Amino acid sequence: MLVVVLDLFGTFVFALSGAMVGVQKRLDLFGVLVLSFAVGAAGGMTRDVLLGAVPPVAISDWRYIVVALGAGLLTFYWWPVIDRMRGTVLIFDGAGLALFAVTGAQKALNAGINPVAAVLLGVLTGVGGGMLRDVLVSEIPTVLRSELYAVAALAGATVVVIGDRLPVPASVAMNAGALLCFGLRVVAIRRGWQLPT
Amino acid sequence: MLVVVLDLFGTFVFALSGAMVGVQKRLDLFGVLVLSFAVGAAGGMTRDVLLGAVPPVAISDWRYIVVALGAGLLTFYWWPVIDRMRGTVLIFDGAGLALFAVTGAQKALNAGINPVAAVLLGVLTGVGGGMLRDVLVSEIPTVLRSELYAVAALAGATVVVIGDRLPVPASVAMNAGALLCFGLRVVAIRRGWQLPT
Amino acid sequence: MLVVVLDLFGTFVFALSGAMVGVQKRLDLFGVLVLSFAVGAAGGMTRDVLLGAVPPVAISDWRYIVVALGAGLLTFYWWPVIDRMRGTVLIFDGAGLALFAVTGAQKALNAGINPVAAVLLGVLTGVGGGMLRDVLVSEIPTVLRSELYAVAALAGATVVVIGDRLPVPASVAMNAGALLCFGLRVVAIRRGWQLPT
Repeated sequence: MLVVVLDLFGTFVFALSGAMVGVQKRLDLFGVLVLSFAVGAAGGMTRDVLLGAVPPVAISDWRYIVVALGAGLLTFYWWPVIDRMRGTVLIFDGAGLALFAVTGAQKALNAGINPVAAVLLGVLTGVGGGMLRDVLVSEIPTVLRSELYAVAALAGATVVVIGDRLPVPASVAMNAGALLCFGLRVVAIRRGWQLPT
Repeated sequence: MLVVVLDLFGTFVFALSGAMVGVQKRLDLFGVLVLSFAVGAAGGMTRDVLLGAVPPVAISDWRYIVVALGAGLLTFYWWPVIDRMRGTVLIFDGAGLALFAVTGAQKALNAGINPVAAVLLGVLTGVGGGMLRDVLVSEIPTVLRSELYAVAALAGATVVVIGDRLPVPASVAMNAGALLCFGLRVVAIRRGWQLPT
Repeated sequence: MLVVVLDLFGTFVFALSGAMVGVQKRLDLFGVLVLSFAVGAAGGMTRDVLLGAVPPVAISDWRYIVVALGAGLLTFYWWPVIDRMRGTVLIFDGAGLALFAVTGAQKALNAGINPVAAVLLGVLTGVGGGMLRDVLVSEIPTVLRSELYAVAALAGATVVVIGDRLPVPASVAMNAGALLCFGLRVVAIRRGWQLPT
């Protein structure tokens, strides 16, 4: 249950970042909603397709769709408010990254895949949505340019996979991984690196 | 049977629109054929992959491949003729959009997915090919910029999903949805909005 | 066994070509590694997803991941050496294309798909990685512009599919197809066509 809530929260903040790029690119409402859904759901959908878990949860569970589109509507109609909260959104985005990286790695482990692939799928879940966002607005994905973003996801996913081999509960490893990833992102943001906005 | 014919017809007109962009971007024959297949088949392939219906019908049924590549050959070698029919092609494209949106939503419902996701997959089937086309030629997808295109698909798919809850045959809901979607597109075209060509 | 070795070799040279583009675009280490993996694995992953063979071998077999990332590390830290070997890398890339096209077509045939689709999936396996590479750095894929690249893959895959109908062992058809594809590429390179680097 907690995992689902956190997962929906991650979807929301990622959808928010997609919608913000859409508004800045002067897309219309529908374009903004497409970007919201793409950024919020694409990473997890790719992971589920690669693991054979279809239909992906981002589609089969309507709450993910509603949350992603809700973030888009919010951004489109409350742009001045959202725009002012940019700094906070960046922090939220770091939280989303942390969460998606660890839940992605854990879901991959649960599917019985090898540890290297589990780390890879954790990173993919975390960064996939943002990559699609940038490709759709015809830019080189920031994750390719801004080292600490994907490295933070890598660190978080690695902690989960290592924890899986140790005699600790999965929840402990996931919390530790998420904290490490989030901490790295916050440090990176404080030192002046920014998401592409 | 009728559905397959209409589906192949939709594949053909979408492949035509992909090939036209390819010729205008001065791609060689092979590039044009790749764009034809991409635009004609990508939306349905993504839908099938997300529903777990693999291999997707656009690949497992050779007629889809032949129709898509045939549209590409036609456009490449008969460019002056195709170019003059641009207005007609736009109308055909609206027909393809309408058809793909309703068949996509219906296939999703048949797979037992929730209604919100069925609408989403209908829209995706309709607009996915065009999005891939624009990404491949390094442009921001028009569907993100031109509101009434995706909204028309949304309207058509929604009618199918609502019809599924009412005591009407699926064929009636699909016809109504396709007509609504097509009508919206034709009005949009008449009022001056254009596909990116 | 031989097939796996050759497949890993193809993954390596494709990953090398992805990493070279990444270094030239001044991506950081992580961006280079993402491009390496994308170019080395994307074609095969798409093929496996479309055939329903999930998780794709490029993920479920850790050796593919290690080989792809190894090529990225090599390129990033030994750039002067790799840069000087550019001509050799082009030849290697042709070998990778040949190999992926024939193994892709063969895997599709083994999955019981129709012959036209098997050819298509062979081509896709060969050219998919390079297409993703170019989309990620926001360029029109070279395969769309440089005719003989995809045509070589098409020739190789076609030989495999025709061979499947003749009373010859699959290994003979695969060797013949790979040689034809590789030969076409080498001729194209010698006559002055170049990969996008």
